[in-house]
Amino acid sequence: MSKRITILGSTGSIGVSTLDVIRQLGEDYAVDALTGNGNVALLAQQARASRARLAVTADEARYGELKDALAGSGIEAAAGKSGLAEAAEGYSNWIMAAIVGTAGLAPTLAAARRGANIALANKECLVSAGDLFIRAVSAAGGRLLPVDSEHNAIFQVLEENQRHALERIILTASGGPFRTWTREAMANVTAATARAHPNWSMGLKISIDSASMFNKALEMIEAKHLFRVRPDQIEVIVHPQSIIHSMVGYKDGSVLAQMGCPDMRTAIGYALSHPSRPALDVQRLDFTKMSRLDFEAPDEDRFPAIRLARQAMEAGGLQGAVLNGAKEVALDAFIEGRIGFLDMADITEAVMERLATLPPAASMDDVYAADGEARASAAALVAKRAAA
Amino acid sequence: MSKRITILGSTGSIGVSTLDVIRQLGEDYAVDALTGNGNVALLAQQARASRARLAVTADEARYGELKDALAGSGIEAAAGKSGLAEAAEGYSNWIMAAIVGTAGLAPTLAAARRGANIALANKECLVSAGDLFIRAVSAAGGRLLPVDSEHNAIFQVLEENQRHALERIILTASGGPFRTWTREAMANVTAATARAHPNWSMGLKISIDSASMFNKALEMIEAKHLFRVRPDQIEVIVHPQSIIHSMVGYKDGSVLAQMGCPDMRTAIGYALSHPSRPALDVQRLDFTKMSRLDFEAPDEDRFPAIRLARQAMEAGGLQGAVLNGAKEVALDAFIEGRIGFLDMADITEAVMERLATLPPAASMDDVYAADGEARASAAALVAKRAAA
Repeated sequence: MSKRITILGSTGSIGVSTLDVIRQLGEDYAVDALTGNGNVALLAQQARASRARLAVTADEARYGELKDALAGSGIEAAAGKSGLAEAAEGYSNWIMAAIVGTAGLAPTLAAARRGANIALANKECLVSAGDLFIRAVSAAGGRLLPVDSEHNAIFQVLEENQRHALERIILTASGGPFRTWTREAMANVTAATARAHPNWSMGLKISIDSASMFNKALEMIEAKHLFRVRPDQIEVIVHPQSIIHSMVGYKDGSVLAQMGCPDMRTAIGYALSHPSRPALDVQRLDFTKMSRLDFEAPDEDRFPAIRLARQAMEAGGLQGAVLNGAKEVALDAFIEGRIGFLDMADITEAVMERLATLPPAASMDDVYAADGEARASAAALVAKRAAA
Repeated sequence: MSKRITILGSTGSIGVSTLDVIRQLGEDYAVDALTGNGNVALLAQQARASRARLAVTADEARYGELKDALAGSGIEAAAGKSGLAEAAEGYSNWIMAAIVGTAGLAPTLAAARRGANIALANKECLVSAGDLFIRAVSAAGGRLLPVDSEHNAIFQVLEENQRHALERIILTASGGPFRTWTREAMANVTAATARAHPNWSMGLKISIDSASMFNKALEMIEAKHLFRVRPDQIEVIVHPQSIIHSMVGYKDGSVLAQMGCPDMRTAIGYALSHPSRPALDVQRLDFTKMSRLDFEAPDEDRFPAIRLARQAMEAGGLQGAVLNGAKEVALDAFIEGRIGFLDMADITEAVMERLATLPPAASMDDVYAADGEARASAAALVAKRAAA
């Protein structure tokens, strides 16, 4: 049974790892389409190396550049939203959804609606549009395979045939660079300090989300949708070594955990090979060298994102979209040095309160509208705070 | 689908916990027969409380006492080897095999041969007679369900449908009370010191086996038979908190672990409820209170039992029976103060060398003969050393 895979977002970190995994998985795995943004040279190189059918740049202005780079290869070039749609609706039975942000929503949803299996690395599909997205996947009959190391870990040890005995999901969190800092010290950090993640090498925004634990907040909301559990069944535990990627607790007292070295290729391989487990050339855990694993409760006073996630989960509807939209604007403002580190949660909370009465989304337009409202509202609060 | 359960060894620690689990599991679980040894009062009380059909004391001299204690209850009484055979061959479709030592071999094998599912807590069935026992179980079509917390953990996370991707089994070991002692200090300990296990409250012999890591050595041999892996696929890691009960490593870099509080009822419940996971009133793990988990390599110089287990696994055949028989005699001699703590491994190793050329067992008689030879040989070495 061969798999044709489309990678939405092939030039980012997850996309690059996905291509490495596909290479390792061998001849039963083929690439259909690849999509990227500005890095057209890398995109063209990836498309040639993987013998893709189609390469798409999201940036319409770079269509000519991409076409030139693919000249003579026989690989089709496309660009812009229509190009992304073409990739999503193409000939693949498997999609790696790795476009970051709300830009990933439309093409991933398009793939879900035609019944493709979705290896999901984009957060917004579940955080902002969880109800609609889950409904689309199950209506079309595809499978949803989580790629985040935490959700992939839970997916590995959540026994679907033992649903009656499922008690809780335990998301692990590294605690980020400010795990042991005081609230006062956290108030004055800069983006450069906040990006220094202890275990994973990641992009700037996700590193800062990890430092504020907004990353974990989004994962909590994702977990609720992915695993169909109640908000009170989702626990977060700080585990600085990030060796245990997450856990599931059952009613017989057993807690099952998935562990591994910090390498996204394990989760990617598991998602692409499902229901089979692949052999991968990744580093193995050596318990004799690990020495110890630590655990502590997250401090919701210093990391209010955890509390906001609980509120958003309890409220349901569009509060996830609002949390995410507001947080994105606050994150940009923090990176630009316009607001402080702790202001990100303050602003997000204020926007969630303002937009608490939005009705549940009937369509993606409602999601985009809520996202837009949250961003506008957050931008106003940023401007006010920056001026103060 | 109701289950009729026979407990071979109901008055010991595993037996008592099993009856508690059966009570928790509710009306779909019924007791067929219970067997015990000298504690006839407890045996009769258990039989009455669980409405057993049959109660058996292994001690023929106590038949009258048992019959009197059951008077008017309608519960049958039996005694001796024929009584044990009657229990094993009775009306149950599920056997908890919890008789300690070689005495557990015959009745457990009898139950296996008639196709009952075997929840296995006896070590000798696999350590001494692994090949014969596994063949008997699979020929009759019953299931073998491990009850040891380590093997039960592996059973929980070993995905049979992913055998192609199985890489290694990682048995955890507490390291016992002498984990941090020097070899010199260990040479002079007494049985009273050795029995002080850090995490589990257990009997005298098993506590000392844990202190010498002979317990782990037996588990390694059991794991080889239970999970059909090569000796080099079995790792041992010292983990003093005993929270991770054991792990399985796969070729995608994932390591799956089962964790829990130290309570045998989780493993017993899992084995009796298979293929369903039960709800049990046992303590839950609280990671916020656990603080840390430690790991270190076992020191095979101070704990040569680990090395001897590897030798026995590589050699196969009757070397498991020889290791176990010799160790039992050496253990008794240590408890009686006739030999030192480290002499137990020395004597076991010497006996394994002497009996290295025994042919594989064709029948249980060969197993009993090897056990007898190993015990005699060990007794001679004990006498020599005690006289020196």
